[in-house]
Amino acid sequence: MTQASKGRILLATTGWDPAGWVEQFRHLTTREVVQEPDGPDDPSIRFAVVWKQRPGVLAGLPNLKAIFSIGAGVDHIFRDTNIPQVPIVRVVADDLTLRMSEYVVWQVLDHLRQGRIYREQQQRKIWREPYQPAASDVTVGIMGLGVLGTDAALKLAAMGFKVAGWSRREKHVEGVSNFHGERQLPAFVSACDILVVLLPLTPATRGIVNGELLSNLKRATPIGGPVLINAGRGQLQVEADILAALDSGALMAASLDVFEIEPLPRDSRLWEHPRVSVTPHAAATSDPGKLAPLMVRQMDDFDAGLPLTNLVDRDAGY
Amino acid sequence: MTQASKGRILLATTGWDPAGWVEQFRHLTTREVVQEPDGPDDPSIRFAVVWKQRPGVLAGLPNLKAIFSIGAGVDHIFRDTNIPQVPIVRVVADDLTLRMSEYVVWQVLDHLRQGRIYREQQQRKIWREPYQPAASDVTVGIMGLGVLGTDAALKLAAMGFKVAGWSRREKHVEGVSNFHGERQLPAFVSACDILVVLLPLTPATRGIVNGELLSNLKRATPIGGPVLINAGRGQLQVEADILAALDSGALMAASLDVFEIEPLPRDSRLWEHPRVSVTPHAAATSDPGKLAPLMVRQMDDFDAGLPLTNLVDRDAGY
Repeated sequence: MTQASKGRILLATTGWDPAGWVEQFRHLTTREVVQEPDGPDDPSIRFAVVWKQRPGVLAGLPNLKAIFSIGAGVDHIFRDTNIPQVPIVRVVADDLTLRMSEYVVWQVLDHLRQGRIYREQQQRKIWREPYQPAASDVTVGIMGLGVLGTDAALKLAAMGFKVAGWSRREKHVEGVSNFHGERQLPAFVSACDILVVLLPLTPATRGIVNGELLSNLKRATPIGGPVLINAGRGQLQVEADILAALDSGALMAASLDVFEIEPLPRDSRLWEHPRVSVTPHAAATSDPGKLAPLMVRQMDDFDAGLPLTNLVDRDAGY
Repeated sequence: MTQASKGRILLATTGWDPAGWVEQFRHLTTREVVQEPDGPDDPSIRFAVVWKQRPGVLAGLPNLKAIFSIGAGVDHIFRDTNIPQVPIVRVVADDLTLRMSEYVVWQVLDHLRQGRIYREQQQRKIWREPYQPAASDVTVGIMGLGVLGTDAALKLAAMGFKVAGWSRREKHVEGVSNFHGERQLPAFVSACDILVVLLPLTPATRGIVNGELLSNLKRATPIGGPVLINAGRGQLQVEADILAALDSGALMAASLDVFEIEPLPRDSRLWEHPRVSVTPHAAATSDPGKLAPLMVRQMDDFDAGLPLTNLVDRDAGY
């Protein structure tokens, strides 16, 4: 195939500089990579690689064959209500999965092992060992049992935790107490000492981490109180409700990597709350060096007549 | 067997209140538990359970059959140079092993995921994602491949880290680059980005974490510099050398759970060093509820003619 006939890749992003991605694609493929089409009906664009693309930018491209998401979530694609009916490919990459599990296990262990208390004690030169439950005394609940949630669940189980999982559709993960559907959500939440949110953002999950859900958490847990960890999407959570739960004791502590508005505004009380850990949507960075090769491979497979994999279900929104 | 013929258990400890252990033994066995023998040649003492026993307290007991160590290390027993020639049983318990691996994985992940930097950024309300290597870019070296070191190595490998191990005697742990003996120590250390010390304290290992060893660490690592984690024994390390290495850049950061003098004196610079994490010898608490049943079982097995297991090699000192 000549370079022209292979078609061009449109790297459609907003709010962020994709220079690292452009460089990777130029290194990996002879397909030309552009950041803007030559007009709204550019026939040379065969594939789009997107992160919060400008709404409508994909709508008129006559030869677009597939859309590739940068990042595990795809809600950023559906902000644009004018996307053509072509397959949407999510990122499924060991690198991304491992990084997310790093973050989840790190934060869960920091709560189990009372990192906040020990850091405060060190500042005051206090040599004291608070009561320390073992991982096997603590139940971690994972909301969302996709590739990321399942890997995190298995790693937490390997560390000795009891693990429960909740998904919208019924799933079975070995060694995990499986809950599913809206009706089982309260029972799932009340079984958790530490609640980890790894859900996709869809109309059905927006705002799901709200006061009602948090009120179902146990007040007393082996580590002193219930803990929330959200590494999914900021719009899954109602931050006013989280702050109220922290103040009322319905929640002991929270680790939040995602926020309703990002960057988290300077006037948010979450920054200064002594029992909140803030990270800047950094739980699982999409490393172009690890992810672009998988996309190029799928493009080449497609051109060789093979099916695309890891496709998004448009009706479910993830 | 009558209660009298079963013999008594001497719980010989100093510097610490073993009330929780006394309670567990009383709950688990009909053998009488005492904290002092009826004189130096008390014939009723059949087993001793010890933590830093008073020197000489065991020497004259005519019917002592075995000594059980509270805690994974046994150096505290050998401070007493006057111990009878009976088997010494170390603690090998899943509970203790899992707790140590919790601590090791927690601290390794906190260094990998730049917890210190993120906590500083949060205090200043800075939304910034520093360069983040993946676990697979980082080599963690474990000094000491006993039960604890091996479990930690396997869990770190499961999290995606490259893992190297060093032991005095040759060992093979699957998926781990194995080094052994004094001659291979510099090569091992120079292969590590994060060095985890889980060695037993013996005359051969005392002060092994010194300036010379630290000078073999790589200066540049994927996480910005080399890191030391010691959860073994404080006398393995030379704290003046660690502080000098932190100041010179030979060491970027350290997590220390053990110290030359414990509790760590208030005037130690380690308390206030911004790149040192201090915990109070709490990496793996010996939980009497989990460990005492294993000791009682060994005592009963011994009385039934079965061999004792997990015996200490007196010549090696561990």
